[in-house]
Amino acid sequence: METIKVVKIGGHVIDDEAALHEFLVSFCAIPGPKILVHGGGKLTDRLASLLGVEQKVIEGRRMTDAPTLDIAVMVYAGLINKRIVALLQKLGCQAAGFSGADGGLLCASRRVAEPVDYGYVGDVKPGAVNTKFLNAQLQSGVTPVICAITHNGEGQLLNTNADSIASVIAIALRPHFKVDLFYCFEKPGVMLNPDNENSCIRELSETDYRRLKSEGVLYGGMLPKLDNAFRALASGSQEVCICGAASLQSALSGRAGTKLKVE
Amino acid sequence: METIKVVKIGGHVIDDEAALHEFLVSFCAIPGPKILVHGGGKLTDRLASLLGVEQKVIEGRRMTDAPTLDIAVMVYAGLINKRIVALLQKLGCQAAGFSGADGGLLCASRRVAEPVDYGYVGDVKPGAVNTKFLNAQLQSGVTPVICAITHNGEGQLLNTNADSIASVIAIALRPHFKVDLFYCFEKPGVMLNPDNENSCIRELSETDYRRLKSEGVLYGGMLPKLDNAFRALASGSQEVCICGAASLQSALSGRAGTKLKVE
Repeated sequence: METIKVVKIGGHVIDDEAALHEFLVSFCAIPGPKILVHGGGKLTDRLASLLGVEQKVIEGRRMTDAPTLDIAVMVYAGLINKRIVALLQKLGCQAAGFSGADGGLLCASRRVAEPVDYGYVGDVKPGAVNTKFLNAQLQSGVTPVICAITHNGEGQLLNTNADSIASVIAIALRPHFKVDLFYCFEKPGVMLNPDNENSCIRELSETDYRRLKSEGVLYGGMLPKLDNAFRALASGSQEVCICGAASLQSALSGRAGTKLKVE
Repeated sequence: METIKVVKIGGHVIDDEAALHEFLVSFCAIPGPKILVHGGGKLTDRLASLLGVEQKVIEGRRMTDAPTLDIAVMVYAGLINKRIVALLQKLGCQAAGFSGADGGLLCASRRVAEPVDYGYVGDVKPGAVNTKFLNAQLQSGVTPVICAITHNGEGQLLNTNADSIASVIAIALRPHFKVDLFYCFEKPGVMLNPDNENSCIRELSETDYRRLKSEGVLYGGMLPKLDNAFRALASGSQEVCICGAASLQSALSGRAGTKLKVE
């Protein structure tokens, strides 16, 4: 069975042109089939502010009203996705960009409005991935570049978490490939102390994760990322790693980042 | 040899939600392989105005400076393309949206800055179409929805005329398919008198076109559209028709629009 690398790149790196270019060079160097999933970055906030669209945040999460959804679609599926694709093409990678609507790739359910209405936000499940479409792209030598916009199959676009998308794609491809999943972001990995670059955890089991979470060592945005990552591991992903975008090359050979450990 | 329908839809219809929906229903009803190419609409101007990006027009043509290109990419490749794809998916059409950068579909040359610098504008030639990528999509049952953004292969996105894109795609697919090309817009076809809905020319040869052009009966935006359309006809397209978006169904069976005539 062939191995596929699913790589997710976070927002901070996308905002930094030089860091993004360096990351894309590393991504291009991955041999064999691969998929890139990308998040948003600060461009959405900047555009919303320029357009006078107030960004509502409820319990740390952005509320996606209709104008904010339009901005997210323009920035994620438009500007960022096509910039990345054009750069990858320049680097010799046969990339093509997709939202979840394209080819019915990711059909999401709009999150229920109770207890909190997050607006046009969609959640995806592994069964919602159109693996036939995805496999056809991979088989014809295309490297899919997937943004965090989905649809509900009823004509409505939805804003969706990019970490979840990477996880469900890894899980959905498991019957077809050995899957390695890499979450790349601005930190070197999962940190015991975010202020100490040398505190990166090299291996993390789910038991360790739950303990560190209950102790308050791990918190905030790291938790949903790790939940998504452990879900992919539990569903049979070969390797799941959380690493710095700048050290993707080293992480690919197991020399950097936090490797999630099966117990 | 199988027939493919290449359909281009113009900006005015895209701005009108009900008209767009009606048009997409007609488009979906086309049996066999098909491709949709879409233009922009007024959203770009509206967004530019909201963002305070001044739109420079030189001799009737928009100048695409860097901020205007970003807006065009967001609106064409982002909002409009994904809205159309989500609507087609709802209607049961396996649509996927592409810019010219995706899959290296359309590699354009930036227009030379002399005598007039139009900025980030790209021109496409039939040889610049990646027919291997396009055929792979069509063979796997995908209906490509193509926006008017291309790239130069060096990482630069470019703004490109949608009528030209439809024409070069029709020409490039000629060795693989019998090609029918439809330019759909807000008028019923090529009009002898734009104010008289009954003055639609039913059949137009290139000689007639040149005469009507020299007489000043045909002018403005109609001329590049007809130049693109006649180029496709001369290159072996089976049928080339300019018709109203609302009467695509009738035009498909030769009962509406202006049919270009081989001499």
